[in-house]
Amino acid sequence: MGGRVTGSLLRLTVSSVSTVRRLVVVGGGAAGMSAASAARRVDPTLEIVVLEATGYVAYGLCGIPYYLAGLVERADELVAHPAAYFAERRRLDLRMHAEVTALDPDRGRVSYRQAGRHRTLGYDALVVAAGGVPGAVALSGVPRDRVFTIRTLEDAITLRTLLDAGRVGRALAVGAGYIGLEMAEALAARGCAVTVVERLDRVLTSLDEEVAATVEAHVREHVDLRLSTGLDSAEWGRALDEQPDVVVLATGVRPATTVAAAAGAYTGPAGALLVDDEMRTSLPRIWAAGDCIAPYHRVLGRPAYVPLGPAANRTGRVAGTVAAGGTASFPGVVGTAVVKVFDLEVARTGLTLAEAEAAGIDAVATDVVHRSRAKYYPGSAPLSVRLVHERTGRVLGAQLVGREGAAKRVDVVAAALHARLTVADLGALDLSYAPPFAPVQDPLLMVAQAAARTREAVA
Amino acid sequence: MGGRVTGSLLRLTVSSVSTVRRLVVVGGGAAGMSAASAARRVDPTLEIVVLEATGYVAYGLCGIPYYLAGLVERADELVAHPAAYFAERRRLDLRMHAEVTALDPDRGRVSYRQAGRHRTLGYDALVVAAGGVPGAVALSGVPRDRVFTIRTLEDAITLRTLLDAGRVGRALAVGAGYIGLEMAEALAARGCAVTVVERLDRVLTSLDEEVAATVEAHVREHVDLRLSTGLDSAEWGRALDEQPDVVVLATGVRPATTVAAAAGAYTGPAGALLVDDEMRTSLPRIWAAGDCIAPYHRVLGRPAYVPLGPAANRTGRVAGTVAAGGTASFPGVVGTAVVKVFDLEVARTGLTLAEAEAAGIDAVATDVVHRSRAKYYPGSAPLSVRLVHERTGRVLGAQLVGREGAAKRVDVVAAALHARLTVADLGALDLSYAPPFAPVQDPLLMVAQAAARTREAVA
Repeated sequence: MGGRVTGSLLRLTVSSVSTVRRLVVVGGGAAGMSAASAARRVDPTLEIVVLEATGYVAYGLCGIPYYLAGLVERADELVAHPAAYFAERRRLDLRMHAEVTALDPDRGRVSYRQAGRHRTLGYDALVVAAGGVPGAVALSGVPRDRVFTIRTLEDAITLRTLLDAGRVGRALAVGAGYIGLEMAEALAARGCAVTVVERLDRVLTSLDEEVAATVEAHVREHVDLRLSTGLDSAEWGRALDEQPDVVVLATGVRPATTVAAAAGAYTGPAGALLVDDEMRTSLPRIWAAGDCIAPYHRVLGRPAYVPLGPAANRTGRVAGTVAAGGTASFPGVVGTAVVKVFDLEVARTGLTLAEAEAAGIDAVATDVVHRSRAKYYPGSAPLSVRLVHERTGRVLGAQLVGREGAAKRVDVVAAALHARLTVADLGALDLSYAPPFAPVQDPLLMVAQAAARTREAVA
Repeated sequence: MGGRVTGSLLRLTVSSVSTVRRLVVVGGGAAGMSAASAARRVDPTLEIVVLEATGYVAYGLCGIPYYLAGLVERADELVAHPAAYFAERRRLDLRMHAEVTALDPDRGRVSYRQAGRHRTLGYDALVVAAGGVPGAVALSGVPRDRVFTIRTLEDAITLRTLLDAGRVGRALAVGAGYIGLEMAEALAARGCAVTVVERLDRVLTSLDEEVAATVEAHVREHVDLRLSTGLDSAEWGRALDEQPDVVVLATGVRPATTVAAAAGAYTGPAGALLVDDEMRTSLPRIWAAGDCIAPYHRVLGRPAYVPLGPAANRTGRVAGTVAAGGTASFPGVVGTAVVKVFDLEVARTGLTLAEAEAAGIDAVATDVVHRSRAKYYPGSAPLSVRLVHERTGRVLGAQLVGREGAAKRVDVVAAALHARLTVADLGALDLSYAPPFAPVQDPLLMVAQAAARTREAVA
């Protein structure tokens, strides 16, 4: 009856692996379907049940802004495969509109509600891939059916229908993080007059303030941005006075851990589930993956809550593989993310200076502004790069902002973080050059070499 | 009187550094001007003389195709700074149209010819940055003034003038390497009927044959490509029968080492100058940089001749810094290069499978075709990635071809090569994702994970 879990949280080991007959996956999003598919690859005969709260599985939440903007025609384009594919080709027992209400890890049973009825299902192994839930926000003065949180495809389809019908003249986006700004861009692209309100005095807290200021200035060219506007402020009241046709909430997500935590699973940063590198929770026979866990952050050296798509897929795959008796492990994240904000590419990896300082690291930032291509090549645009590094030279992170060339350049720094390179190492890389793609000295080399000189000056 | 050089070639050490009073730099291209500028930063009072064979300094040869295509309006846009800038701001003694004829390392004297007169100049330190010279090709049946090699800005200006005057209906490009294909694209963009002839039976020998075949098919959509066409073949005669208005030779370059080699400098691969990691040649008080040297190749573990712009700049800077008494070293190359071929981005780094096999390495290649962006996002295009790796897992190189997304992705592999990562490490990287920029699992992760599975199957 499943693997027994022993030892401390970060070094959980399975003392014996017995045959798993039924795997239950809670959540049919990216992480859950990755887990179920990976489990199928490990064990062709395993019974695999997926309990999904909505009417869709394997949907990509990240594509929703582009669907709303009209760049993606149909909602089903955001779905990796239709449910029938998973049911037939991968022989998964998909139970839709099934909301999990309780876990009993001692008896290996999961309770859920479906079509108004309570049901119970036994399991030998279970993967919690319940995702994230939007922060609870009570909005006064806005009809409930005009408020969208955009965490489900259904929600997105409803909003898109309103947009297509020309019924959204004014839109209010709440939150100026990644999703809030992507939604603002999508709504503006549909011709809506968009106001973005943000409780804090800045946009994109995943960036250092100086870097975020560049993005903020660009956002203001496209929409009405109101910072320091909490939902209880007079400014918020004024935003509502202008009677938005829709309100889109993008105030961030918290991990959907209520059920697992109630069953006794250990939780960590932001209340997310703690897991080992094989995605094992502190509960026997229960693994977890995706936006409900705090994976290991390689630069911080401890778990962190950074809910993003690639890690959801990867941790799902690891959880499903291991839960089904296979071998896999997740090497952790370094916090790489990129977002398109109107005409800007905004990318980051590792730690910001603020994050490094908060973690007690003696860090400095080196900034350069260089170009995306050879200066004489058409389309060449300024690219701002901030490199965050220890005074002793180790690279800690980077932030890039520009009209082009930020997204994939940040991955070079992600690789440098993985390999624990120094600024001197980074500045010594043999990076690609041709006038249409980069200046002869890539901006990453410029900033790393400048950082290395800073370090020499300090040393 | 300069640093004395002792020891073996690859471990040359300066036993004492005395004051350098006059530094002579042979060649005012990217490497030479980088050397001269770096030397000025080290020593504000040093006398620095640059001997340049043409009428321009600090010109970027890589930009010439875009100048010919009309994407870059004026030739002087390809020049980093005008000569006056270097003369006044950096106090460099630039001697133009000065062709170096001999070096006397024992007496520290360099001979050159300028305006028909022979001159001699003493030096305390000298940097050879003579660049590359086109392979000597004797063309019968083509007027000499219609044959271009495009290694000087003057040559490019002459050809551009012909193009602007509408005097080039038919153009013949000889060679299907990087430059030959860039030139073919530029000439086709100007409305010329372009024929490309290539001695070998394939294009781009810097790629594996299977990868080059993809590029070849694309080239054939735009120009008349004739492979296996040597200058003595009947096919070549037919190409000439069609009476090209211009012939552009792009048959590769060899290092311009005649003078240095005659003075006794050690040479290595392709006859290029051998240098240590501080760019010191085997001759006392003589350094070298740019397209005339064979820098250390980190993956091969020995010198290799890979004449490209970034290394020219970097090795120039190191040579100039050290020659002037400063401290610097060059960490070597990994053979990263990218080229735009019509609508394709073609990138490579490290070793091809053929190169690895030629070096006696037990290597395999793993190929995947994935996408540049999320499949539903507009502009998403197929991206072919070949990863070359040791059977034991070490990454050896990569080749990427696609309409977009190849150029900067290859840099992640360049970083992996620098850090000697395995395919498992590469597959574990936390790379950036957003639908406009990448699929949720980046093509690099897909190929690395596939390679890791190959490795397990082999092990």
